[in-house]
Amino acid sequence: MAENGVLHPERVLTLDTMNPNVKRVEYAVRGPIVQRAVQIEKELKEGVKKPFTEVLRANIGDCHAMGQRPITFLRQVLALCTYPELLEDNKFPEDAKSRARRFLAACGGGSIGSYSMSQGIELVRQDVARYIERRDGIPSNPDNIYLSSGASDAITTMLKLLISGEGATRTGVMISKPQYPLYSAALADLGAVQINYYLDESKNWSMDASELRRSLAEAKKHCTPRAICVINPGNPTGQVQSRQCIEDVIRFAAEENLFLMADEVYQDNIYAEGCEFNSFKKVLFEMGPKYSNKVELASFHSTSKCYMGECGFRGGYMELINLDPDVKVQLTKLVSVRLCPPVTGQALLDLVVNPPQPDEPSYPTYKKERAAVLAALADKAKMTEEIFNKVPGMSCNTVQGAMYAFPRIELPQKAIEAAKEKGQAPDMFYCMTLLEEKGICLVPGSGFGQREGTFHFRMTILPPTETLKVVLEKVEEFHRKFTEQYS
Amino acid sequence: MAENGVLHPERVLTLDTMNPNVKRVEYAVRGPIVQRAVQIEKELKEGVKKPFTEVLRANIGDCHAMGQRPITFLRQVLALCTYPELLEDNKFPEDAKSRARRFLAACGGGSIGSYSMSQGIELVRQDVARYIERRDGIPSNPDNIYLSSGASDAITTMLKLLISGEGATRTGVMISKPQYPLYSAALADLGAVQINYYLDESKNWSMDASELRRSLAEAKKHCTPRAICVINPGNPTGQVQSRQCIEDVIRFAAEENLFLMADEVYQDNIYAEGCEFNSFKKVLFEMGPKYSNKVELASFHSTSKCYMGECGFRGGYMELINLDPDVKVQLTKLVSVRLCPPVTGQALLDLVVNPPQPDEPSYPTYKKERAAVLAALADKAKMTEEIFNKVPGMSCNTVQGAMYAFPRIELPQKAIEAAKEKGQAPDMFYCMTLLEEKGICLVPGSGFGQREGTFHFRMTILPPTETLKVVLEKVEEFHRKFTEQYS
Repeated sequence: MAENGVLHPERVLTLDTMNPNVKRVEYAVRGPIVQRAVQIEKELKEGVKKPFTEVLRANIGDCHAMGQRPITFLRQVLALCTYPELLEDNKFPEDAKSRARRFLAACGGGSIGSYSMSQGIELVRQDVARYIERRDGIPSNPDNIYLSSGASDAITTMLKLLISGEGATRTGVMISKPQYPLYSAALADLGAVQINYYLDESKNWSMDASELRRSLAEAKKHCTPRAICVINPGNPTGQVQSRQCIEDVIRFAAEENLFLMADEVYQDNIYAEGCEFNSFKKVLFEMGPKYSNKVELASFHSTSKCYMGECGFRGGYMELINLDPDVKVQLTKLVSVRLCPPVTGQALLDLVVNPPQPDEPSYPTYKKERAAVLAALADKAKMTEEIFNKVPGMSCNTVQGAMYAFPRIELPQKAIEAAKEKGQAPDMFYCMTLLEEKGICLVPGSGFGQREGTFHFRMTILPPTETLKVVLEKVEEFHRKFTEQYS
Repeated sequence: MAENGVLHPERVLTLDTMNPNVKRVEYAVRGPIVQRAVQIEKELKEGVKKPFTEVLRANIGDCHAMGQRPITFLRQVLALCTYPELLEDNKFPEDAKSRARRFLAACGGGSIGSYSMSQGIELVRQDVARYIERRDGIPSNPDNIYLSSGASDAITTMLKLLISGEGATRTGVMISKPQYPLYSAALADLGAVQINYYLDESKNWSMDASELRRSLAEAKKHCTPRAICVINPGNPTGQVQSRQCIEDVIRFAAEENLFLMADEVYQDNIYAEGCEFNSFKKVLFEMGPKYSNKVELASFHSTSKCYMGECGFRGGYMELINLDPDVKVQLTKLVSVRLCPPVTGQALLDLVVNPPQPDEPSYPTYKKERAAVLAALADKAKMTEEIFNKVPGMSCNTVQGAMYAFPRIELPQKAIEAAKEKGQAPDMFYCMTLLEEKGICLVPGSGFGQREGTFHFRMTILPPTETLKVVLEKVEEFHRKFTEQYS
């Protein structure tokens, strides 16, 4: 093989010799369309003329990149932890200082630069447990909390523990379609069997017990299903599952002996009237000991979403219910190999689960900032749905929660054929054309999975309101033109 | 199975059903001895009487936990990045402010809370490339740099790419004995074949080409060796490989078609006279195009060691030489699933590879602080070796670099038998007894691997000089008493 005139006759690591599971991994949220967006940005910088002057990235839930401002209190305490000399500075409020002192006292040598326990700092896990208790009204044990480097880290770790067997005994894991592609990617990497169950688009992407049973029955023919993953509020679909749906899933998991994994990173992102967040843990315990003594549950949370949107800090946790104590020992051993989650992320998480209280000086600002972020998201969720539903050939379920709209788009037969000629999925072709013509970066529905013959895209609702409005109008304009062109 | 009176008749995830590879993982640095140390600390807090008042943890290279102070400049810039309102504060030096502004300008939305590119922020990768060029005098391409969450993350990722095949075609990876147990743990997790080559204790833990050939020849009988890992400066053994040794390894890798992984996280930790750090990359390129056009090399660095010791931030990078471009695409895809390394760690890394320059206001303090840390470590390395070598039945190679002494200990036959009765490795028994009697937490040599019939322990040289002296004296006292007791 010759590259740049250099011969590599005997390379060790090639496409042919590399880990075949890694080759099977796909991750659309940062896939080809995003790589093309990066290229276009470079071209724009180099002066290449385009029908637009900047690329708008609505492909990923990256809050601060879209202009959301950090919550003052969180950043103040983090700065104090990072450079404790600031504890002498009277510009910082006392409650921020006392939080910083409290956190640093729990760090080795009083420094945020020390390793923590691999499971996470005990103080933070205690604060997480109290947060969960306040949220659910159900006791929580800090020993069952594992801090992580974002939710992705914890989800991958739990999936890894679950995978075993070969052939018909190989572990199968049920994931929704559409899904957040971390799940399919992790399962491919682990060589596990992916079992798809479909969300019901006609019922605002709710889960359906009969569809779960259909999916499971089919999977049992060729693998050993051992877990079910649920994302609520939904990514990419933005729904909030009803309490009834959650009960159905828990009953299903109990009957079918499935380990339940609940991805609840958008738990504060609830917008639609009549919707509320019910944690799987809360519902599980309220269903009584028949379920709460039986169902094994891992639930995941993150510092990257909700009102704070601190993606870069890579903070998160999981709570484990009914985990076999021997397996817990194995889990603790496994996470110790990576030493510890980022301590800055642990500090941030501590503040998220233990924010300023009404009698503390930072409370008014904290409350105002938090409410402003969530209110703006609720407005944008509504606006997005309304505009998309006015476009002929586009229909969008209510964005009840999370940070995404996942509208269904009708594509003309000629567009489908044009895509086929390019070797692209029709919605990838659609999104690529949109990117080239309007500079808007969305993720095609095929990257998340969707019912055969249907097409969608995922768009974040994160851009500032005025920008979002322009984006929505551009998408509308593009959709009309695209439909016309290929009709 | 009944726990706390609750029946779990049909648990999904048990020792029997879990991932068998994970069960095989071992990680001594945070293993049973550290868990016992944590217990003892709790007992002390509860008022249980012990022959000591605190546990001294010399088991892990956790610099700040052992009292090392953070470098002021690093923390100032990180605080500015975290809470940019401080950019208006005249207490911060201008060079710290300009670094913070420069870094924030490279973050999405100007916030350290945004995701970065999965490969790492381009600006940081450029700075890393320039650092490598200054270090080696060899060009470095930012496209070949991948930022990571500590070195462990990058090492695990590269190993994952390399593993394929089944039975005799299953990938084997050569690692040193003694080794840092991340390697054995990652290989167990990946189900790869671990191939041991022994370092030569009689030549200050140097590598030996004939031992490499012996080890490889044996391994070829049952697996397909495809990579060799080298830790230099050495962990747990504290040696600095000579240029000759490095050339031998490169020649060996070239001849035998092995992917070369160089763990160089202690590159600034060089203490012994006549020793210098030679990066594998530098030596590879200085050996000429026959090697530099052929050998595939991944080298790893971290923000956790050297003079800064910022373990909690989880910063690091790897540089890839001669990686197949198609594999690089796969690598980029793989790391994108985890979104990005912690951005605070990336910021820290940027400062480490691009520290204050002589004409900048922070330079004198930075230089003084850095020199003080490294000088103290050099003194402690010498003191440790000297004291250990005075103890009858103990011999310690020169601690040329890194942060550890790995003395060999002679254990009486009766002690070996007593250990056997307890089902413990003899050096585990020794270290456990030391922990119970003196409150000193070390890691037994068996956790790193050692020649059959030899016994060692690893001790960090990180405690403050006065504390370290006390620790060394206590170990000496213990060793005499232990030897006497079992003779």
